[in-house]
Amino acid sequence: MTKVFKEILHNPLLWLLAFVPVVLVGQKLKPEAHTLLFLLSILALVPLAALLSHATESVAAKTGDVVGGLLNATLGNLTEMVIALAALQAGQYVLVKASIAGAIVTNSLFVLGASFLLGGLKYHLQEFNRVSARLQASLLFLATIALLVPSVLVKADSTLQAAFTGKLSVGLAVLLLLTYGLGMTFSLRTHREMFSSADHAEKAEPPWPIGLAVATLAVVTVLVALVSEVFIESVQKAAEAFGMTPAFVGFIVVALVGGSAEMGSAFSGARKNRLDLSVGIALGSSSQIALFVAPVLVLLSYVLGPAPMDLQFWPGAVGMMLIATITVSLVTNSGRSAWFVGVLLMMVYLIFAVTLYLLPPRV
Amino acid sequence: MTKVFKEILHNPLLWLLAFVPVVLVGQKLKPEAHTLLFLLSILALVPLAALLSHATESVAAKTGDVVGGLLNATLGNLTEMVIALAALQAGQYVLVKASIAGAIVTNSLFVLGASFLLGGLKYHLQEFNRVSARLQASLLFLATIALLVPSVLVKADSTLQAAFTGKLSVGLAVLLLLTYGLGMTFSLRTHREMFSSADHAEKAEPPWPIGLAVATLAVVTVLVALVSEVFIESVQKAAEAFGMTPAFVGFIVVALVGGSAEMGSAFSGARKNRLDLSVGIALGSSSQIALFVAPVLVLLSYVLGPAPMDLQFWPGAVGMMLIATITVSLVTNSGRSAWFVGVLLMMVYLIFAVTLYLLPPRV
Amino acid sequence: MTKVFKEILHNPLLWLLAFVPVVLVGQKLKPEAHTLLFLLSILALVPLAALLSHATESVAAKTGDVVGGLLNATLGNLTEMVIALAALQAGQYVLVKASIAGAIVTNSLFVLGASFLLGGLKYHLQEFNRVSARLQASLLFLATIALLVPSVLVKADSTLQAAFTGKLSVGLAVLLLLTYGLGMTFSLRTHREMFSSADHAEKAEPPWPIGLAVATLAVVTVLVALVSEVFIESVQKAAEAFGMTPAFVGFIVVALVGGSAEMGSAFSGARKNRLDLSVGIALGSSSQIALFVAPVLVLLSYVLGPAPMDLQFWPGAVGMMLIATITVSLVTNSGRSAWFVGVLLMMVYLIFAVTLYLLPPRV
Repeated sequence: MTKVFKEILHNPLLWLLAFVPVVLVGQKLKPEAHTLLFLLSILALVPLAALLSHATESVAAKTGDVVGGLLNATLGNLTEMVIALAALQAGQYVLVKASIAGAIVTNSLFVLGASFLLGGLKYHLQEFNRVSARLQASLLFLATIALLVPSVLVKADSTLQAAFTGKLSVGLAVLLLLTYGLGMTFSLRTHREMFSSADHAEKAEPPWPIGLAVATLAVVTVLVALVSEVFIESVQKAAEAFGMTPAFVGFIVVALVGGSAEMGSAFSGARKNRLDLSVGIALGSSSQIALFVAPVLVLLSYVLGPAPMDLQFWPGAVGMMLIATITVSLVTNSGRSAWFVGVLLMMVYLIFAVTLYLLPPRV
Repeated sequence: MTKVFKEILHNPLLWLLAFVPVVLVGQKLKPEAHTLLFLLSILALVPLAALLSHATESVAAKTGDVVGGLLNATLGNLTEMVIALAALQAGQYVLVKASIAGAIVTNSLFVLGASFLLGGLKYHLQEFNRVSARLQASLLFLATIALLVPSVLVKADSTLQAAFTGKLSVGLAVLLLLTYGLGMTFSLRTHREMFSSADHAEKAEPPWPIGLAVATLAVVTVLVALVSEVFIESVQKAAEAFGMTPAFVGFIVVALVGGSAEMGSAFSGARKNRLDLSVGIALGSSSQIALFVAPVLVLLSYVLGPAPMDLQFWPGAVGMMLIATITVSLVTNSGRSAWFVGVLLMMVYLIFAVTLYLLPPRV
Repeated sequence: MTKVFKEILHNPLLWLLAFVPVVLVGQKLKPEAHTLLFLLSILALVPLAALLSHATESVAAKTGDVVGGLLNATLGNLTEMVIALAALQAGQYVLVKASIAGAIVTNSLFVLGASFLLGGLKYHLQEFNRVSARLQASLLFLATIALLVPSVLVKADSTLQAAFTGKLSVGLAVLLLLTYGLGMTFSLRTHREMFSSADHAEKAEPPWPIGLAVATLAVVTVLVALVSEVFIESVQKAAEAFGMTPAFVGFIVVALVGGSAEMGSAFSGARKNRLDLSVGIALGSSSQIALFVAPVLVLLSYVLGPAPMDLQFWPGAVGMMLIATITVSLVTNSGRSAWFVGVLLMMVYLIFAVTLYLLPPRV
């Protein structure tokens, strides 16, 4: 237990944990102070995400390579998942879908772009392992395509009924999860040498003992769930107050908050000239959202949600996801980066953000 | 003649030739048994395609390098062509277009994916010639783009009249055939060293004598034409009986049946760690469909069909073709493959297939 | 001054300068002879573009590396810019946008394709610097994406109001110019070694003295502006007379005329087996149009135009630009080219041209 406190003292980011009780108490006392609760819940979610990420890694480190890898991969986007579940239960499917699309776009453009920029400001030209980057970029591209097929087809043909979309979404969710399972076998069993280096590169600090790690994992997950609920409840009203569209909130705000933990690792990797780590995180997270988080949410919507959720995204989101994944494929292709490539990736992200911010709300 | 029979005895696949007379007699006796005739005609077309492919190779081997290469390239998709011609004559343009699009998608995703998977199950990492794969993938990409331009532009602008589409389609067909001719010059004359290795790698068995080969070619083509007619006549009704949409039949069933011969070569190449052969077949067949089969069908529709056929595909088919060719370009780019890349390619194909299967029929 | 005359005598292209006074006088005497004035103004613009390009290079060569590079990069598309400004002032926004899109497509497909073809007819396989080509292709891709985001999003959602598009366009113009500034820093300061070789490779002939060069630059710019005005005034009527659609004129004719100077350098580079130069010109010009010319025109429309111009392109133009830049990324990826790759690039361009030519005019 002292370990956790030591870590908290050591890491200024974790001081933000103080906002966790504040937001939960605030919700009881002033449930109508949406804007304040929204800001507080963001401040509370960021350190929780960091803690969750550290706990996951500790559990993974203790449970042997394969199980550990599996845990790491599956719980790597736990924060995003819990936030999305809170939105799912509240029936806010537009927000759920926006956060799925936003996580893919944010990881592909913002995390990768900022890594290239931060690394490039320190090093003239950075190289990364072209072969594994290309393989991972291909996986991401195909995973995203698989996710987008129904939207592309249905966009093309507006006469299709909802019944078709629902049935198709369940079928695809099963196929995506199957692919995810095979992908786990691939990256943890048959071809682990192509992926493992990046995963284990960063862990200088010793992991926590297993009991502590599991307990932290459990407690923090519950806390994330509680805070997420406040976040999801307040987000709509707060967005209005800030003049933000729901699309902007889901795409940009939720994705940045949920992914804050991985971003830290990706950026620090880039600053240490270990771009393989950054590329692995950016591409790996995106693939995982497409192949695991999205289909799980679809299937869970039959149990948890007020109505089934399908996999049909609004056309603008489809365009952004396609652009993001094609971009990643092209950019990681050369195995080299310089600061301006990072600027361009972030600029595309910024343009998406500005567009979503200005987007008039749907009537 | 004994050679052909020996081959038939030797190759269990060719025993299916017994279904050729069965389907032709069946058509006379029970023309209303659509489902049965449909299944029988598929069983009959598969060995005919194999025989046609072998005969073409034998003729090609005997007629010298350039003429042989030309024959091989032009008759390589003869089965697809004859089936499409039968559909053209029956005025089933939706089916013709679906089979064009389906052949491109099937070769790019299924043939390549299954080759990667089959090869990858035997070899940890497989390498193939990156330079020629990239060049071929570029050709495929540009060929598909050329084919799709009218659909993309017309999709974008629904006010365009049919007259414009017809005129444009003829113009483009001429341009595509011109490109095909130049492409032949390129791959058979000026740059044959980049393509020839893959073509001639597989032929362990001695070719048939020229007389036999030409006779087989002629007879089998006639048989394919006869069986195709039964196939096309029965396919619509059979599809209804099986609950399959016409889109699914054209895209998936026709493409798999027509391409069965090449698939055999591609898969056996992959199992022998000669991925260059598999990649060459997958990409070469797709390019040929786009640059040769499609424009020839458009031009022949003025002679054979009840009305001119244009090159405008339904938007979903455009999306699938674009996705398939971009995917191929990205995947062949690294010059390496592993089993999971094959899984992903096939998964995208499977997703297309499931979507087309579930697609409610147009009203 | 003798230098300029010597150059004119030396270079038969510059004899066309004789058409400059002819077109200006013609405009006064016979303002209604649109077709004749249109043809004369094209004949006058081509040598002016060549002279402008030479003068810019001379000024650049004299003013030191950084300022020179900046001048070269910024004034490299001066002819396109001045023509577009003339159209902007005349309120012909469709033509302005078509010329922006057309310049990107023409540089990516026609200039690159013709360079590959011309070079490939002389050399069996040509190699170019893969690393810098990929980096430049990534920049072009991201630049074009940035330019296209509003069109893609707005196309996807037709309920968006014009107010949104206008506000978004100004925001994006600022972001694009910022990116352009950073890109200048990148290519002229921090990573100039990746770009400079191509820029300075071609200049065998000694530059003009600075005074002469600046004077020429000023005089020729004014002449281009005067002739452009005639060109823009006559183009509409002339197009009708030739049966050309306005889309064809903007996309193809204006782009070819405006870019004639760079084309000369790109082609001669290819014939000398210096494909790096050709690739650099084709990709560099395209990026510059997207990042500099387009946003400057948007911002200037608030000052010079009768009404603000936005960045929304018609869907067909979006499709062509996307296809062109994806194509360039794929094709330059291998670092090799052969004549048939050039044929394919030009064929895609030709298909665009034929389609635009046949396109029925909007009502």
